[in-house]
Amino acid sequence: MDKDIFVKLLQQRQFKAVRSILDVMNEVDIASLLSDLDDKELALAFRLIPKDKAAEVFSNMDSTMQTYLVEMFTEKELKELLDDLYMDDTVDMLEELPANLVSRILDTVSSSDRLMINELLNYPDDSAGSIMTTEYVDIRKSMTVAQAMAHIKETGIHKETIYTCYVTERRQLIGTVSAKELMTEDDNTLIAELMETEIISVHTHTDQEEVAQLLRKYDLLALPVLDAENYMVGIVTFDDAMDVMVEETTEDITKMAAMSPSEKPYFATSVFAHARHRIPWLLVLMFSATVTGTIITRYENAFNAIPLLVSFIPMLMDTGGNCGSQSSTLVIRGIALDEIHFKDLFKVMFKEFRISVIVGLVLALANGVRIFIMYQNATLAFVIACSLAATIVVAKLIGCLLPLCAKQIHLDPAIMASPLITTLVDTFSILIYFNIATVFFHL
Amino acid sequence: MDKDIFVKLLQQRQFKAVRSILDVMNEVDIASLLSDLDDKELALAFRLIPKDKAAEVFSNMDSTMQTYLVEMFTEKELKELLDDLYMDDTVDMLEELPANLVSRILDTVSSSDRLMINELLNYPDDSAGSIMTTEYVDIRKSMTVAQAMAHIKETGIHKETIYTCYVTERRQLIGTVSAKELMTEDDNTLIAELMETEIISVHTHTDQEEVAQLLRKYDLLALPVLDAENYMVGIVTFDDAMDVMVEETTEDITKMAAMSPSEKPYFATSVFAHARHRIPWLLVLMFSATVTGTIITRYENAFNAIPLLVSFIPMLMDTGGNCGSQSSTLVIRGIALDEIHFKDLFKVMFKEFRISVIVGLVLALANGVRIFIMYQNATLAFVIACSLAATIVVAKLIGCLLPLCAKQIHLDPAIMASPLITTLVDTFSILIYFNIATVFFHL
Repeated sequence: MDKDIFVKLLQQRQFKAVRSILDVMNEVDIASLLSDLDDKELALAFRLIPKDKAAEVFSNMDSTMQTYLVEMFTEKELKELLDDLYMDDTVDMLEELPANLVSRILDTVSSSDRLMINELLNYPDDSAGSIMTTEYVDIRKSMTVAQAMAHIKETGIHKETIYTCYVTERRQLIGTVSAKELMTEDDNTLIAELMETEIISVHTHTDQEEVAQLLRKYDLLALPVLDAENYMVGIVTFDDAMDVMVEETTEDITKMAAMSPSEKPYFATSVFAHARHRIPWLLVLMFSATVTGTIITRYENAFNAIPLLVSFIPMLMDTGGNCGSQSSTLVIRGIALDEIHFKDLFKVMFKEFRISVIVGLVLALANGVRIFIMYQNATLAFVIACSLAATIVVAKLIGCLLPLCAKQIHLDPAIMASPLITTLVDTFSILIYFNIATVFFHL
Repeated sequence: MDKDIFVKLLQQRQFKAVRSILDVMNEVDIASLLSDLDDKELALAFRLIPKDKAAEVFSNMDSTMQTYLVEMFTEKELKELLDDLYMDDTVDMLEELPANLVSRILDTVSSSDRLMINELLNYPDDSAGSIMTTEYVDIRKSMTVAQAMAHIKETGIHKETIYTCYVTERRQLIGTVSAKELMTEDDNTLIAELMETEIISVHTHTDQEEVAQLLRKYDLLALPVLDAENYMVGIVTFDDAMDVMVEETTEDITKMAAMSPSEKPYFATSVFAHARHRIPWLLVLMFSATVTGTIITRYENAFNAIPLLVSFIPMLMDTGGNCGSQSSTLVIRGIALDEIHFKDLFKVMFKEFRISVIVGLVLALANGVRIFIMYQNATLAFVIACSLAATIVVAKLIGCLLPLCAKQIHLDPAIMASPLITTLVDTFSILIYFNIATVFFHL
């Protein structure tokens, strides 16, 4: 839908046309269309959205728009919206709203919902509890398929997913049945006969990344969440898991580039916030790099005697940094995907060692030949080639070692990425280089 | 399940116990348990898996295990397996099997399946066609809810997902109905009244990354795939989309660390393959870095006069590289998540410019003060601070510019990451540094 046409229709008060447009549009697209409107038009347009779509459009909006709308709503409108919103979307919204609007909303919902919301708001950020929804289909093992289907027909419309039904007994989860089975099995079959009793579940405090990994590993639509007493309290659905996966990966990638992750997208983050996320690591790395600088001054005699030596510093430092980053990147990603563990430390190091020998030989040879041709100086070619090969081996070992050690001492492996590895490898490469040069050139 | 106990039971031929264990285990876990077994034990254990789980266990195995099993199977076993495998899993397997086994399998399946498989095998890698399945629920708009449910009961058990039903008319897709609606609506309602006619679909040649993005954006369980004539030919399900997302992100991260992506996990890739993936970019970057080296030699007089100047090279180069990587990383991720586009070029550059001014001032000040205190030399402190600030501004602009330009000319933005940016920024930082130094120290 073209935004300009839509705004024109709104301004000309062609409400019938606007309503027809909103009627055929997808909820996600409506939310994105509305995000381009002014506040006044937004409130107007939102009220023209068909009732059965309004809650879903709302849950797809960003928090600035949600805040504005909640402020504008009458009591009645607010109540209608809250009735239609899923519990996890309500909680997501509340986490972002200013305090006065939160209390207004808590005053509007029923007292049982209020209790539930308060409980959900108390789960730690990034835990299963904070992303779960409490609306799931709950059945008994004594039901038949037909009874379960009748139960879903009655209550299902308000549940976020009905495709996995949870069999509970005294609030304990004892089995699951898929809607596929209910739809394809005989009406008189007992749930007790159908239900799957090997249940994959998480606890309210399980990290959301682990939850997402489990959903992906087992191709699940939803994962049940249990509380400390093993009572079933909610489910996390696949769509939230997909979002968590993307969020967590973005966080990792951001950390790997020496920044603190931002909760908001690039453009929504202010210039000052961006600067604040970037400066701390840059300062640390900058001061660490001065160590390498100080070491260089120790070899002043060497490069005063052969000034050409200085010109190979960037090539050695960059190649070392790149080799180290390659190894650390693969190991960090392997850890994130649960493919590499600390117990594999020696296996990884041995593999990286063999790789680094091949890589080192090829690069040393290529560069040695180039230098010999350019400068007709065999000793120089040999010194550079040796330094390069040794730097590459050290770089790859540091690159694979650090992320695994970080993981082991419960630091985020993602910080052991390119920037830090590069700074560390720099120091080693300079030491290796000038030591080899000093020996071979008798400096 | 403990692997050692399982192997012991197998060796002692305690088949009843093994069967009971396999009976309560999840398919994904069985596949992972079996991956630790020897070939002989594997064949034995696979034959003990309950019939209704065997196909799913098989589809969760890696291609080496699948190849071995297919070789071992009798005609009858192979036929049974193929009957139970979903079409997309069959095609996934065929893509990895050696040619003789592929023909054996094509000889085993029915001729209609053979046609279908050959068609699926012909779609380009990474396209919607190559990851779709052809088994979906197909209904008519003239059906009632009850008729549709009866149709599903009859045919649904063999479909990969029955939770979205596709309403077709002369092979054209005209609407979708969710199982949730079928389960909660009145039996006599016509599908024509229920069906959603705003359909989000893709074509067989759509890139799999785009398919995954759409499924995530619209929180869909499955996405219909149309052929060139707009006939419906299959669906892509959410679980495949999750895998695609993880794969594509791994590919991006690998490219961002100057490596060619590997199709296999870290340990499954041989040392030579790892080396082959890493050497080409390292060579390119290494030779590019010699440009910086050559530039340094032009300023031999400068660092012969003031040898201390050399010691600041690592700090300047590293900080420039880190600043550039920060910007390029955020832009590359923003492009991948569809949040940043080429039309935002100037917006991004202006934002990065403002950020770089703040970052540059803070870092220049910190370093200037440090140098002044350490060396009691105001000119030196000023030269380094100025070079640092200028390098940071240039680095951030290069960092945000290159990925966007790459995208525009249909290159993968991920290659414009840390390694390449660092090498480029190095050259600029050395030029800036020695030019400023030459002016202020009158060299």
